[in-house]
Amino acid sequence: MKGKLKLDETDHQILNMLIDNTRTPFTDIAKKLDISAGTVHVRVKKMEESGIIVGSSLTLNYKKLGYTFIAYVGIFLEKTSQTQFVLNRIEEIPNITVAHVTTGKFNLFCKIRAKNTEHAKNIIFLIDDIDGVSRTETMISMEESLNDKTRLMKSIFENM
Amino acid sequence: MKGKLKLDETDHQILNMLIDNTRTPFTDIAKKLDISAGTVHVRVKKMEESGIIVGSSLTLNYKKLGYTFIAYVGIFLEKTSQTQFVLNRIEEIPNITVAHVTTGKFNLFCKIRAKNTEHAKNIIFLIDDIDGVSRTETMISMEESLNDKTRLMKSIFENM
Amino acid sequence: MKGKLKLDETDHQILNMLIDNTRTPFTDIAKKLDISAGTVHVRVKKMEESGIIVGSSLTLNYKKLGYTFIAYVGIFLEKTSQTQFVLNRIEEIPNITVAHVTTGKFNLFCKIRAKNTEHAKNIIFLIDDIDGVSRTETMISMEESLNDKTRLMKSIFENM
Amino acid sequence: MKGKLKLDETDHQILNMLIDNTRTPFTDIAKKLDISAGTVHVRVKKMEESGIIVGSSLTLNYKKLGYTFIAYVGIFLEKTSQTQFVLNRIEEIPNITVAHVTTGKFNLFCKIRAKNTEHAKNIIFLIDDIDGVSRTETMISMEESLNDKTRLMKSIFENM
Amino acid sequence: MKGKLKLDETDHQILNMLIDNTRTPFTDIAKKLDISAGTVHVRVKKMEESGIIVGSSLTLNYKKLGYTFIAYVGIFLEKTSQTQFVLNRIEEIPNITVAHVTTGKFNLFCKIRAKNTEHAKNIIFLIDDIDGVSRTETMISMEESLNDKTRLMKSIFENM
Amino acid sequence: MKGKLKLDETDHQILNMLIDNTRTPFTDIAKKLDISAGTVHVRVKKMEESGIIVGSSLTLNYKKLGYTFIAYVGIFLEKTSQTQFVLNRIEEIPNITVAHVTTGKFNLFCKIRAKNTEHAKNIIFLIDDIDGVSRTETMISMEESLNDKTRLMKSIFENM
Amino acid sequence: MKGKLKLDETDHQILNMLIDNTRTPFTDIAKKLDISAGTVHVRVKKMEESGIIVGSSLTLNYKKLGYTFIAYVGIFLEKTSQTQFVLNRIEEIPNITVAHVTTGKFNLFCKIRAKNTEHAKNIIFLIDDIDGVSRTETMISMEESLNDKTRLMKSIFENM
Amino acid sequence: MKGKLKLDETDHQILNMLIDNTRTPFTDIAKKLDISAGTVHVRVKKMEESGIIVGSSLTLNYKKLGYTFIAYVGIFLEKTSQTQFVLNRIEEIPNITVAHVTTGKFNLFCKIRAKNTEHAKNIIFLIDDIDGVSRTETMISMEESLNDKTRLMKSIFENM
Repeated sequence: MKGKLKLDETDHQILNMLIDNTRTPFTDIAKKLDISAGTVHVRVKKMEESGIIVGSSLTLNYKKLGYTFIAYVGIFLEKTSQTQFVLNRIEEIPNITVAHVTTGKFNLFCKIRAKNTEHAKNIIFLIDDIDGVSRTETMISMEESLNDKTRLMKSIFENM
Repeated sequence: MKGKLKLDETDHQILNMLIDNTRTPFTDIAKKLDISAGTVHVRVKKMEESGIIVGSSLTLNYKKLGYTFIAYVGIFLEKTSQTQFVLNRIEEIPNITVAHVTTGKFNLFCKIRAKNTEHAKNIIFLIDDIDGVSRTETMISMEESLNDKTRLMKSIFENM
Repeated sequence: MKGKLKLDETDHQILNMLIDNTRTPFTDIAKKLDISAGTVHVRVKKMEESGIIVGSSLTLNYKKLGYTFIAYVGIFLEKTSQTQFVLNRIEEIPNITVAHVTTGKFNLFCKIRAKNTEHAKNIIFLIDDIDGVSRTETMISMEESLNDKTRLMKSIFENM
Repeated sequence: MKGKLKLDETDHQILNMLIDNTRTPFTDIAKKLDISAGTVHVRVKKMEESGIIVGSSLTLNYKKLGYTFIAYVGIFLEKTSQTQFVLNRIEEIPNITVAHVTTGKFNLFCKIRAKNTEHAKNIIFLIDDIDGVSRTETMISMEESLNDKTRLMKSIFENM
Repeated sequence: MKGKLKLDETDHQILNMLIDNTRTPFTDIAKKLDISAGTVHVRVKKMEESGIIVGSSLTLNYKKLGYTFIAYVGIFLEKTSQTQFVLNRIEEIPNITVAHVTTGKFNLFCKIRAKNTEHAKNIIFLIDDIDGVSRTETMISMEESLNDKTRLMKSIFENM
Repeated sequence: MKGKLKLDETDHQILNMLIDNTRTPFTDIAKKLDISAGTVHVRVKKMEESGIIVGSSLTLNYKKLGYTFIAYVGIFLEKTSQTQFVLNRIEEIPNITVAHVTTGKFNLFCKIRAKNTEHAKNIIFLIDDIDGVSRTETMISMEESLNDKTRLMKSIFENM
Repeated sequence: MKGKLKLDETDHQILNMLIDNTRTPFTDIAKKLDISAGTVHVRVKKMEESGIIVGSSLTLNYKKLGYTFIAYVGIFLEKTSQTQFVLNRIEEIPNITVAHVTTGKFNLFCKIRAKNTEHAKNIIFLIDDIDGVSRTETMISMEESLNDKTRLMKSIFENM
Repeated sequence: MKGKLKLDETDHQILNMLIDNTRTPFTDIAKKLDISAGTVHVRVKKMEESGIIVGSSLTLNYKKLGYTFIAYVGIFLEKTSQTQFVLNRIEEIPNITVAHVTTGKFNLFCKIRAKNTEHAKNIIFLIDDIDGVSRTETMISMEESLNDKTRLMKSIFENM
């Protein structure tokens, strides 16, 4: 963490505009903040190089694409020494979008998106079949009511 | 769902490039796919209007921003008729980035990001204090090993 | 139970044929068993009057009718003295096809059939809103692999 | 689902009468609906061929037959790859009338009917002894308060 | 159960007196009930032979004997086919005074009496070490508030 | 515990004989141990007065009396200050033969004996209806495999 | 944390000697480390003022003092807003030696030391009776096998 | 326990002063209690030799030393016969400051102190990797609100 980048007010304002729309042209940002487009470019580059900005991702409507089923799967491993091996297998299953190492009841905890109940069952069976997985327990979402990091990101920059 | 947009091969290729980098200029996409930039523009607009593309979001490194603590919070409500009211209160807490209605053990299930243990405790206490919330149970992430929707999105378009 | 009907071999054979197809004409049964149709009629009437045969029901393919979602709902009551009242409310919800009084973890245990996740959520919310219901926990079926009382009925008559 | 049968008002009325009593003669249905018996026959045949009507089953009073004990058994498998094998063994036990694949706490979830506690214990031991079954947990019904699909079937046709 | 003994009012009164004090001399019972001592003798013999009276046991004050620790131990077996074998091993441990076959969370459920925490730990370790026992879970009694079958026995005879 | 009675070898032998059969005449014990009947009488009296012998109880075969159903009921209280009040109500229900104060999952833990499932349900509902009882959870015995304090009593005297 | 004291090798060695025996005279430490007693005094004072050394505590043998019973008590609160109030009440109970705010299953988690089962029950009842405490669950220690911070303290200084 | 040391009022007062500060010079204690320093020395020696005083330990502020993370880890063993072996391995991990043998849900129960989430994860993985450990479950402390044996020690001497 030594020598980590200190963000100033201008950085925050640039991030705020990109958070609202990652495709905002740098010239628009420059005009709004009354700085040169080159400055915007330099600042963004600096934040990318320091690792604060990792990338940008498209927000799609999964329902419209036929993916209406979301579930959280808790995984019990036979041995925690298999953690990394199992995580590598998990990465090969694209329907698992999030995976955590936890130490409470479960060893690993994942989020999956599937087309329907039948499809979800097959994805869970894929997880169950990974070497080192002893058992899984699934919790099914009836509605994704909130999925939004924008509020958090704005709050972080406001409180910095 | 009636009259829902049918995506063709060109749409898939455009999405694939934007998934890799939402800031890819349309002219680059056009050149790569050997179509006009206007066509790219029209296609993207059509996918936005039909609701398939909801927006784009910046991927930040929360650790570098001092947010190293992730937890999942299960919420028990006093009555499910309070679900919408509690969800509205939850939206006012920016550290809650995801919230689901579930019907297993919990009524609601959330993901929170905090700076540290102390900060997380305070956020959980905010949730506990919402009218209608009877009790919460928290599971703490020791490591976010995977958080990536790109693999899923590519898999969806490949299998369409 | 005093004076309860003793079924004989002929009764068993009649039941066996009706179990296979409740619409089997009595004349077919009579011919098969080499008895008169009148006898079949008398025997069936007797079994109906003694309460052994309660009725007959159509077996529909719920999937073809758009009802693909099955869940089991465990209900916690505020007081067991409300059991009958809650059971009466449950009967008013046609999507609940089975309900048991249990004394383990739950007070009541139900089976519901719904069109999809959204529909199931609404049915569960109806249950949650019944006066006297304190909380529910739902277990979702990924596949109804077996639903067949014919094997049991045949086994009962064979072992009688 | 393509080309699936569309039921019209006449189909609904026929189903409604058969739901009340599967043995209702087609001539009675015809008279009631003011159509020919041949039409009734054709409609029922069509619904059977399209798979909507699967069959009909006798509703017996299990208590009168000495079967007073109902329990639900949750099954933990050693590996989910054994699911189909275990389901096949389950089908050989006639006292198991319902079986579901689930993905929550249990891998499989069954309903059993037995004569009494002793009999139930033996059936559960049969399940425990199936290869691939690691453990079972049983919940005992104190009273089957509701077991009726008629209300659901009528509600489906009314809302179609 | 065929030909099981029907107890009459005199039997009930004899049992009632013996329940209060198993050492009551038959002559006292005879005088009280205004029958001959021989009749008392015959009746008691008959109840012993029919298996209704199994024997009599001394009620000791375990606390005064230095046995102040009571716990209930739930046992998980590796396979239910080992039930009888494990029960035989359990019988060899005199501190286990009660054992049940259960089918809920546990396979077997026992009551143990020990001198103190250290002693209880050693008894539980004996159980854990039986072949076929996979795991145990113990619930400790803080106070045995009631241990009395007299009220039940009297209630049975009053309601017979 | 001050001044508590020290049992000697003779006391142990007397107790051992009474444990086998509480009705053994003192003259038989005297002859067997080669002491006077008066000594036996004095020793037993002393053990009764010091509270070591509390009484004697008849061992009946509950199955033969139609009581085939045993269950353990865990009770959650609203407040532990109600413990004594609830224990008093519990004593009024003769089918509860054992009750413990526990501090693990449950506040109180009871054993009940009933005629059948229906009867057990009604007894559990009586418990649920006691003021101060918030909820109960029942575990049902499929078989009482062991219920014997004789082995313990003998082991105590052997190890004294 | 700004301006926090940096410990050097000499500080570590002083701490190491005091960890082994808090009563080691400063002159002994000085001689061993070949520095002046004044330096030891200054260093210890500095570590006390910076808050690294909070104090010293006597390690007693609780068993020898008649305190053989250790339990962990999980507390469920009615509302987390009562956390501080309940913690203040907990501090008034000297038998509670450790208390944590947790956010998993329990709201608070305590360690208690008592003379015996009866004493422990009374302490737990004191906790249950605090306003705002809804329920407690107790886990009893059968043996405190390790209670030693010396290894940790030495490891901290070695790895600094 | 035979011949165990009886503490008198003077011993209590000496202990009370040492509990407040283990480094209190014996001359100060002597002056305060109006006895000779030699007497203090003799009394303390006697209490050490009888095992009542085991030693003294430094109370450090772990937060100031960078150790902000506390967790409780429940351990499931494969066999309880491995208890001592696993306890020996646990002693080799200095971050485990407390360990208990328990017989409820877990076989062993530990307290760990770590620098942060990442560090804690690694310590828990060390535990998981011990031969004979089948699984662990961790509960994380959000705040150590109380850690004080002084109140207990004073209460013990006051009530002696």
